[in-house]
Amino acid sequence: MANCKVKTRKESDLIGELEVPVDALYGVQALRGMNNFKISGVPMKNYPNFIKGFAITKWGAAIANHTQGKLTDEQFKAMVQACEEMYEGKLDEYFLSDMIQGGAGTTVNMNANEVIANRALQLMGHKPGEYKYCSPNDHSNASQSTNDAYPTGFHFGLYLECERLIAAMDLCIKSLKAKAKEFAKIVKMGRTQLQDGVPMTLGQTFNAFAVTLEKELKAIKSIREELLCQNMGATAIGTGICAEPGYSDLCNKALNDVAKKLGLNWKITLEKDLVEATSSTGSLVGLSSELKRIALKAIKICNDLRLMGSGPRCGLAELHLPEMQPGSSIMPGKVNPVIPEVMNQLCYKVIGNDTAVMLASENAQLELNVMEPVAVYCLFESINLLTNGFDTLRTLCIDGIEADVENCKNFIAKAIGTVTALNPYIGYKNSTRIAKIAKKTGKGVYEIALENNVLSQKDLDKIFDPKNMTAPVKLDIKADQDKIQKTLEGILAKL
Amino acid sequence: MANCKVKTRKESDLIGELEVPVDALYGVQALRGMNNFKISGVPMKNYPNFIKGFAITKWGAAIANHTQGKLTDEQFKAMVQACEEMYEGKLDEYFLSDMIQGGAGTTVNMNANEVIANRALQLMGHKPGEYKYCSPNDHSNASQSTNDAYPTGFHFGLYLECERLIAAMDLCIKSLKAKAKEFAKIVKMGRTQLQDGVPMTLGQTFNAFAVTLEKELKAIKSIREELLCQNMGATAIGTGICAEPGYSDLCNKALNDVAKKLGLNWKITLEKDLVEATSSTGSLVGLSSELKRIALKAIKICNDLRLMGSGPRCGLAELHLPEMQPGSSIMPGKVNPVIPEVMNQLCYKVIGNDTAVMLASENAQLELNVMEPVAVYCLFESINLLTNGFDTLRTLCIDGIEADVENCKNFIAKAIGTVTALNPYIGYKNSTRIAKIAKKTGKGVYEIALENNVLSQKDLDKIFDPKNMTAPVKLDIKADQDKIQKTLEGILAKL
Amino acid sequence: MANCKVKTRKESDLIGELEVPVDALYGVQALRGMNNFKISGVPMKNYPNFIKGFAITKWGAAIANHTQGKLTDEQFKAMVQACEEMYEGKLDEYFLSDMIQGGAGTTVNMNANEVIANRALQLMGHKPGEYKYCSPNDHSNASQSTNDAYPTGFHFGLYLECERLIAAMDLCIKSLKAKAKEFAKIVKMGRTQLQDGVPMTLGQTFNAFAVTLEKELKAIKSIREELLCQNMGATAIGTGICAEPGYSDLCNKALNDVAKKLGLNWKITLEKDLVEATSSTGSLVGLSSELKRIALKAIKICNDLRLMGSGPRCGLAELHLPEMQPGSSIMPGKVNPVIPEVMNQLCYKVIGNDTAVMLASENAQLELNVMEPVAVYCLFESINLLTNGFDTLRTLCIDGIEADVENCKNFIAKAIGTVTALNPYIGYKNSTRIAKIAKKTGKGVYEIALENNVLSQKDLDKIFDPKNMTAPVKLDIKADQDKIQKTLEGILAKL
Amino acid sequence: MANCKVKTRKESDLIGELEVPVDALYGVQALRGMNNFKISGVPMKNYPNFIKGFAITKWGAAIANHTQGKLTDEQFKAMVQACEEMYEGKLDEYFLSDMIQGGAGTTVNMNANEVIANRALQLMGHKPGEYKYCSPNDHSNASQSTNDAYPTGFHFGLYLECERLIAAMDLCIKSLKAKAKEFAKIVKMGRTQLQDGVPMTLGQTFNAFAVTLEKELKAIKSIREELLCQNMGATAIGTGICAEPGYSDLCNKALNDVAKKLGLNWKITLEKDLVEATSSTGSLVGLSSELKRIALKAIKICNDLRLMGSGPRCGLAELHLPEMQPGSSIMPGKVNPVIPEVMNQLCYKVIGNDTAVMLASENAQLELNVMEPVAVYCLFESINLLTNGFDTLRTLCIDGIEADVENCKNFIAKAIGTVTALNPYIGYKNSTRIAKIAKKTGKGVYEIALENNVLSQKDLDKIFDPKNMTAPVKLDIKADQDKIQKTLEGILAKL
Repeated sequence: MANCKVKTRKESDLIGELEVPVDALYGVQALRGMNNFKISGVPMKNYPNFIKGFAITKWGAAIANHTQGKLTDEQFKAMVQACEEMYEGKLDEYFLSDMIQGGAGTTVNMNANEVIANRALQLMGHKPGEYKYCSPNDHSNASQSTNDAYPTGFHFGLYLECERLIAAMDLCIKSLKAKAKEFAKIVKMGRTQLQDGVPMTLGQTFNAFAVTLEKELKAIKSIREELLCQNMGATAIGTGICAEPGYSDLCNKALNDVAKKLGLNWKITLEKDLVEATSSTGSLVGLSSELKRIALKAIKICNDLRLMGSGPRCGLAELHLPEMQPGSSIMPGKVNPVIPEVMNQLCYKVIGNDTAVMLASENAQLELNVMEPVAVYCLFESINLLTNGFDTLRTLCIDGIEADVENCKNFIAKAIGTVTALNPYIGYKNSTRIAKIAKKTGKGVYEIALENNVLSQKDLDKIFDPKNMTAPVKLDIKADQDKIQKTLEGILAKL
Repeated sequence: MANCKVKTRKESDLIGELEVPVDALYGVQALRGMNNFKISGVPMKNYPNFIKGFAITKWGAAIANHTQGKLTDEQFKAMVQACEEMYEGKLDEYFLSDMIQGGAGTTVNMNANEVIANRALQLMGHKPGEYKYCSPNDHSNASQSTNDAYPTGFHFGLYLECERLIAAMDLCIKSLKAKAKEFAKIVKMGRTQLQDGVPMTLGQTFNAFAVTLEKELKAIKSIREELLCQNMGATAIGTGICAEPGYSDLCNKALNDVAKKLGLNWKITLEKDLVEATSSTGSLVGLSSELKRIALKAIKICNDLRLMGSGPRCGLAELHLPEMQPGSSIMPGKVNPVIPEVMNQLCYKVIGNDTAVMLASENAQLELNVMEPVAVYCLFESINLLTNGFDTLRTLCIDGIEADVENCKNFIAKAIGTVTALNPYIGYKNSTRIAKIAKKTGKGVYEIALENNVLSQKDLDKIFDPKNMTAPVKLDIKADQDKIQKTLEGILAKL
Repeated sequence: MANCKVKTRKESDLIGELEVPVDALYGVQALRGMNNFKISGVPMKNYPNFIKGFAITKWGAAIANHTQGKLTDEQFKAMVQACEEMYEGKLDEYFLSDMIQGGAGTTVNMNANEVIANRALQLMGHKPGEYKYCSPNDHSNASQSTNDAYPTGFHFGLYLECERLIAAMDLCIKSLKAKAKEFAKIVKMGRTQLQDGVPMTLGQTFNAFAVTLEKELKAIKSIREELLCQNMGATAIGTGICAEPGYSDLCNKALNDVAKKLGLNWKITLEKDLVEATSSTGSLVGLSSELKRIALKAIKICNDLRLMGSGPRCGLAELHLPEMQPGSSIMPGKVNPVIPEVMNQLCYKVIGNDTAVMLASENAQLELNVMEPVAVYCLFESINLLTNGFDTLRTLCIDGIEADVENCKNFIAKAIGTVTALNPYIGYKNSTRIAKIAKKTGKGVYEIALENNVLSQKDLDKIFDPKNMTAPVKLDIKADQDKIQKTLEGILAKL
Repeated sequence: MANCKVKTRKESDLIGELEVPVDALYGVQALRGMNNFKISGVPMKNYPNFIKGFAITKWGAAIANHTQGKLTDEQFKAMVQACEEMYEGKLDEYFLSDMIQGGAGTTVNMNANEVIANRALQLMGHKPGEYKYCSPNDHSNASQSTNDAYPTGFHFGLYLECERLIAAMDLCIKSLKAKAKEFAKIVKMGRTQLQDGVPMTLGQTFNAFAVTLEKELKAIKSIREELLCQNMGATAIGTGICAEPGYSDLCNKALNDVAKKLGLNWKITLEKDLVEATSSTGSLVGLSSELKRIALKAIKICNDLRLMGSGPRCGLAELHLPEMQPGSSIMPGKVNPVIPEVMNQLCYKVIGNDTAVMLASENAQLELNVMEPVAVYCLFESINLLTNGFDTLRTLCIDGIEADVENCKNFIAKAIGTVTALNPYIGYKNSTRIAKIAKKTGKGVYEIALENNVLSQKDLDKIFDPKNMTAPVKLDIKADQDKIQKTLEGILAKL
């Protein structure tokens, strides 16, 4: 990092002395972490909400520490301003720790402690590194440990990051609903197991897409509330060593005050058992599971779009997706469903990240889970991928989807599955007989029923009215099942 | 299945004719499924709650169908009795479908339909197979499709199966709490990252185990409620074809009535969008994710028990687990933590099943997810494994755990990490200096502090009182940090 | 297990005394394991090859021990006969240990040791339990530990189990090749990204299925050879404590002799580093990964069968899969691709098991991996599922597949993608122009090219000859690309 | 991308016209891809070996096309130079496609095609975009499709990337072996199931680490050879449409020539069945599985280092890992095993990526697997993480590890497990009795054996000589087992 040309200041820690760039607001411990962990190449500053989460945490802690006399008024004032600037993104450039680190987040926590202390020092008229006036450990981190400040910080950071995803999902749902409305009257074939089933409207399809995402929107909103449960005051292992009685409650109140001041409608609560909370990654596993479920729903929607959009002439071709780019370097005129395809792929990475989060969680030991950083990284990555994915899917695909009304109609016309609508009147076995005749003769169901007087034309028209096939219906139609059976078996015998 | 010696009756379906054992209450379609799917070798009857779930479903449907005039009084009465017998486990022997089948559950649904129809036929004085008096398709399955009856059936079945797990977890939590009480005064070393940390009580450890499972107990109770949301009336693809208007609501009411009659405190609700519900496996994914989280928590507890029980002489040896069996075929006297080990292993299978459920869910297409059966199988297997696991863990391990008070005490006595307790009074940097001296000299922290007059013996005794190290505390102790720094640096310079 | 009515004998171990059923050939330690581990309900005897693997292992060890004077001639002779009976499946009923156990396989190893000792005792004229004449620990297990005999035993067992899968895959490949031959002349549409591509033969499709499985057949044959690498002589932790010098080599030779005698064409080798081998599960992870890859290939084939078989009237319908059972409880005449569906599902479980194996492997610690039993269980389960799956897929699906020649032909006739065949002569951009015209006008590619004199009819016929479109070809055709461009742009301008 | 200030040129494709930055060597299709896929934010140029892989591929294709008369001499010469510059990394800045894209790699393939065409145009004295002189589709991509050039390109790219990992593993193995030598005489306790086992040397431990990685080094070297199997000439779907007969073989030869010219010792081969190869991701799944297995081995090593380095006073403390950074923001003097911790975490991400690769592979359909890009991204990421991880682990941890000889010795002295060494002479049951006495009295095994005349002091000294306990040994020692039994039972009776 530091080379001969960069002016540096000396700082020291347990391990020894190190040259820190003279203007850097991080200090020796963050620098050591940067040197030790050259792993993913992805620095913390790539996820600004992560930094915001720490700003809130440290701000709340400062208030509680000030109240308990651990900080002078001067220190407090400067530190609060530092936290505010940090929240506003003004200090992002100093958060260079790799997203994957050893040390259970100590590097990230000390990075925050050092930036706050050094920025406070500047505001108090001192130079970065003059820690006797404001120290990363004794002041920024007062009454804290990495093991409470770090999870609290990333909890809040992830909560904020979820906001982006929620907004993207919300817009996507709205677009799906608009399409549901647009396609409300288009009758198409429903399929189960890729086999022709019974009719439905294309609007019902898109409405189901919207509803299934709405369920997840509700779920993630509910699950992310777990992230507002924090363990400040746990300190090292949950027993609260180095913290004074009452600190936890003071800090929880302060955090709520800070959130309110920042316009966040949060209800932050304190964990019931701080020992449990300190080694638990339950909320990360819960969040990751929900991201996985969102990914699975998105995959379903995209797979359906790709199926319904297959063709143009040798597939289902019930939909036209917007044409985004030439689809082949060799096949002229080919256009592919590239947007659903890319959505699927990012969803696989999200699900892969869920495996990584599971493994990180699985490796908790005794009073801590040292593997939290990789879980946190995976979650930020997954939320970001899904957010970008839903925005891309909505703007470059869903909003421009058009129905191929002609193809939809043609499929219905030649389908055998519509025979299902006869069940309530002629019975499952007789319907099966008509289906068999249709398969063997290539004829249509309506045609067979009509020409063999299974039911009157009037009755058949009522039954096969799309309106009546796409919703529950009660029609006053009677049939002689035994007679129909004989007729149909007669025909079958001859085929 | 059927050989020349077994008396049979002929039955036929769309595919053709088949010989069904004459007394079998299943029929041609279930038999076809049994013949087609010789896969896992695990029959449905291995999970009696699965059958119970179908009994409730079909019972409710029968009530609604009777109300809407689809069943005669005679049929209805017989079918209800059949359902009741099915719920009571009296017909289990006829549920022989392999737990993994193709056909999206049709085999299982038809198995239930045929058993109910045939049992009803017997009760009505007919013989199995005389379907004109009561038909599997037209009566047992009236107003239904596999695609609504099947998910409703397994939802209810899984809900019942969860009851077993909840009971096992509940007892395990109680045992952990009893141990927490028993160990409340035993002070032991807390460790983070496997490195010596600060003291805590063994009671705090066990209480955290109890609390972390309590969170999951609450979570699974909440998540399984999703299973009481059902889609009866969706019929084939959610549009309700073949069902009359009002059937869905009638059926939902009937299901609640049946549950009540059976003494189940259930609040069954109808899905909002039946098209969405019919292809969605969201509740299965949610349940599986929660089972995974429970497994992760159980693994954490068991790993900690194995670590704290390591030794007996070359490990931590803070705990003695009950000795269950000789631990080695070669190392005499060796006793292993076999119960936590087996718990860990079954948890891996549960997590593996979560991957399978994810894949099943990922393969929904258009109006259905045909892969539900394997997901359902995995969930029943996982719940059963966890239930057996928690019962085994509690009775054969937790209840018999003893603390090794001597070892716990010895560790505390020689630990360096207790220096943390000095932070609030002498500062992090001075504490670090004492830690360094301790490492280099092999001396104890208390000893170093005392012999160098860092604090008075009285103050040190207060600070190092276990009571004060295992909870937040405010002690009125003052120190001259600069002077202490000089003293300690003087010592370090000489080492 | 034992109740008051069953006659018992007393046996004791480190833990104390226990009543063993008097005729049981297992002893106190296996019984303790059975009592401790009521987990999966799946006993070891469900996998006879697992028992065979132990028979070979113990047989080989007995030879080596006899050579080194650890067994009397009488003991040796009896033990060898016991091993032979065990290999032949005659003692299966005594292997009742749950497939998931704690203790790193000690229960299973002792189960084998006890059965061999007790059967030998019978053969020597003693009673089960009279261990002074032949002891499970001192004789059956002489020079061994669970930590070498157990992995060697399950390695051999899994090797044998793989044989079943290999046979099933081999037959399936043959069936696919037969279909490839049968369908060699049927031209159908090739599709990429579900979009119409260029023509191919259905034979090429089925040949590719065969080839892709052949690759895996080769791979699993190669990977399972790792299972013939064993660590006998490692004893407890790989250092060979309690074994005499030379024992490892003697035992390896003996194992090869036993295999040969049993007609197995095996080349068993000794691990190079026994310490490494004792805690490593690399070969299990390798095998599981390969099973996963086989599953992925099977899924691909089945998904393609389901896609090509979709319809019958509103899908691709290029194939007819055999009709195995009625496909719906509500939709008459519906027939589903239930066999590919069940194959897919069992493959998900295989992939789920791979996750479990990964977790088991991930939890090795120091000199052992105590989690091997669950990995072994998952592997036996997966191999069995895949074996059943391939047999089912072949006999109930592939062998009966028929092509729908008419539909294949129709798709080709109306496809736009065939325009690709013009690229080499008129250039990608001109081909793109024709494709555009085709899309807008609904006309065919051949028609457009012909009516606009893009090429002569003779040339077009050559180019669009299916034979020439489904393999590399060199045709002596020239075209004036600039002129064609002008013509086509003229047309496009008017559309 | 392009704004009003950037000078642009117009380019058009099937979709329409777009403004491309005038000096950009990519063209309209790459730009369209960049606009469509704003997903991961990670551009292709982050993985230079990916670009190199395409350089080789396109270079080889150019040679074959030139031979078959598809390129003029002038075009050929310019294109070859463009490929050479691309291989040398001089054109990296133009590869900006997101690592996750839809379109099955078309964007990446066209990016390469456009860069080569445009660079060739420059070399021929034309301007970028003057495609009539050298076209991305007709010349760069001649006789190719994305579906053969893309997999060939990423195969080669991944092969090159593996080189980095192989080098890092190789160095790490060397370091482990050096430590094995250094620690060859240090006797320490071996442990199974975290319970005291029998002695071994610390050198054996480190040697086993080296050996277990050596196995994987061999495995990955073998598996990556699969990546040199390519499908050039498959074109769109494997049938070779648009390619002339003989092209495949010509191209394969040319690729080998190019590799040789570049100093690569490669043996590139042509896939046997190009239809199979075009949709298969078997080699990606195989590579990913191997990366997972490497990760599992690395986790094992790191977990062991963390366990053996636990303490310093309340753990095993057999090892001292280098101190890399202060371990706690609250616990002074605490130093954590941060390097093994970070290695573990990146391994979880690698394993998570394996899940993503599996899902990508699982979603092949018909003639293609459109999900390859995310699999390729995951593999590049995983290889890079592991490479960085092994380098970090070696330099910042392994090379500096020191043994704590004193602690190792003390554990051996007080262990009970050493009683195992007596088995061959006094029998397992008698050894068990001594172990029991040791447990109850707290005495040492040697002491008990000696004071009760179990064996002579001379014999005991031989048996308990570390040299004899850490390798197979044959000692000529006899004992009267019955007499010993009586003595020991006498003692036990009194305890």
